[in-house]
Amino acid sequence: MKLALLYAEFKSDIDVIEKELVQALNSSSHMLNDASVHLVQAGGKRIRPVFVLLCAKFGQYDIERLKHVAVPLELVHMASLVHDDVIDDSNMRRGQHTVKAQWNNRVAMYTGDFIFARALQSLAHIEQPIIHQVLAHTMVELCNGEVIQIEDKFQLNQNIKTYFRRIKRKTALLIESSCYMGALAAGVSQKDAMHLKRFGYFVGMSYQIIDDILDFTATDKELGKPAGSDLLNGNITLPVIYMQNDPRIQAYVEQIQTGQLTEQERQHMLTLVRNSEAIAKASAISERYLQKALHEIDQLPKHPMRKKLRDIARFIGKRDF
Amino acid sequence: MKLALLYAEFKSDIDVIEKELVQALNSSSHMLNDASVHLVQAGGKRIRPVFVLLCAKFGQYDIERLKHVAVPLELVHMASLVHDDVIDDSNMRRGQHTVKAQWNNRVAMYTGDFIFARALQSLAHIEQPIIHQVLAHTMVELCNGEVIQIEDKFQLNQNIKTYFRRIKRKTALLIESSCYMGALAAGVSQKDAMHLKRFGYFVGMSYQIIDDILDFTATDKELGKPAGSDLLNGNITLPVIYMQNDPRIQAYVEQIQTGQLTEQERQHMLTLVRNSEAIAKASAISERYLQKALHEIDQLPKHPMRKKLRDIARFIGKRDF
Repeated sequence: MKLALLYAEFKSDIDVIEKELVQALNSSSHMLNDASVHLVQAGGKRIRPVFVLLCAKFGQYDIERLKHVAVPLELVHMASLVHDDVIDDSNMRRGQHTVKAQWNNRVAMYTGDFIFARALQSLAHIEQPIIHQVLAHTMVELCNGEVIQIEDKFQLNQNIKTYFRRIKRKTALLIESSCYMGALAAGVSQKDAMHLKRFGYFVGMSYQIIDDILDFTATDKELGKPAGSDLLNGNITLPVIYMQNDPRIQAYVEQIQTGQLTEQERQHMLTLVRNSEAIAKASAISERYLQKALHEIDQLPKHPMRKKLRDIARFIGKRDF
Repeated sequence: MKLALLYAEFKSDIDVIEKELVQALNSSSHMLNDASVHLVQAGGKRIRPVFVLLCAKFGQYDIERLKHVAVPLELVHMASLVHDDVIDDSNMRRGQHTVKAQWNNRVAMYTGDFIFARALQSLAHIEQPIIHQVLAHTMVELCNGEVIQIEDKFQLNQNIKTYFRRIKRKTALLIESSCYMGALAAGVSQKDAMHLKRFGYFVGMSYQIIDDILDFTATDKELGKPAGSDLLNGNITLPVIYMQNDPRIQAYVEQIQTGQLTEQERQHMLTLVRNSEAIAKASAISERYLQKALHEIDQLPKHPMRKKLRDIARFIGKRDF
């Protein structure tokens, strides 16, 4: 099943959310407006809002209420992407562009803050304290994840559990919360809400592992950035963890940390990882999470949405870029 | 009256808030912990929590509830200070310190995000949607203020209204919201809550104008940074607006924007502003806001806290550094 087909049924509700996103990002500052409008137009799969809607179908579905859960989640995701990009382009900060880059970075930082604040403004329509607690906790853990990722940069000999904890915070929690908050907002029973929550967690884990594999196996064009970027930025992902005892990988990491790889060396590094068993091993782990996600669906009462959830989980688990 | 005397009565409640602040800033990341603990220890006047407590005295005062309003406000204030400092020290980013400074900046950014998230976590205990809306709106406007301040940098020929709008967003709104949210959380009548809200706004305006004057009139030692820093960073504050037609000021601004002032030139610039009428004019405006704040107090029902609010407003309006 194509993702577009899955989305077709929700088209009008996704349109409601898109409109709300545009409104939320409206600002009296030109700079903020420009930065934000660009973000909405850039689109995205809107995976988090879709999970909110799908999971809410197991309870009382009311788009006018649900949009105040879906929009904050998408905004928190967007804001975290904006902050991820801050200060990353070091070329921009050299020589005479320093001040301009400084301003750009500051504006990017405040754009992220602004989007966070807009998320809360939308969520303020929801009076269930538990929903506020879930989102706040997710945001805390997102930050923890980002900083721990910085702490763990270039660290080989990582425990695989460290990696799982990191991607849980970085990705899985926000998808878990999308499912859980959608269910809670629709008054789904606690038992079913927990299945949906765990479903979201497992899908999120599977999703991020695939992402980390694709960073090595997809082409620069498919990725929209150089393949191997994770490692080039010092992020040790699952495929690399499986190879961390290989002296050739250790040499690459050291070289990246102290200087730069030539284009030829990057290609050799990619070939080394692609031809290793690490990719298959990592894929197997992603598949295991996918199966766990599907197992949670089996525990839910019979409902047409069960098939949709399976479809979207499989789509995410099987995508090849 | 000394601020310490005013605080004495609230000592045990402020201790509750301090403890809650320490707890809120606790993190599983060492880097976040170090950065945050440092912040709490650095202290601060805790003006915002004190306003929450003072204003709540006009209703049902319950510290266990109020702390979930006072702590988020102080955390939002702290987070915005942390983000203000990001990327500001350009020396740190030159030469071989670049990567380290990059990391430091990234950690500072995520520390701010983390503190924002902790603010929401604390606020999640409060189920009144209006309180969430007020804080979210304040955070949106804080970001707008920050970005507009960037847009307005080095811009002479500023309308005085632009300045007032800017300091409203940057400072007054958060103090206004502290008073308003404290009142709302304590169930103060809508009429009195509005007086307390406006009181907070006027005090906040007075406070920031004094701050902008002191940046020129206080010593480097009193300020803990070079006097004139606002202008050196391109921020055009009220005293400068009153002098913006003076060609000597225009020359200084141009020189700052394109290069740097020598220490001698900075001293000349300070003398020029200090000896001008701009300082007295700006002080008069601050005093006017202070009087407006006191006038709001007069509209409140008789209550021992009215004197305290007057004392704190006067303290803020008269402080000389």
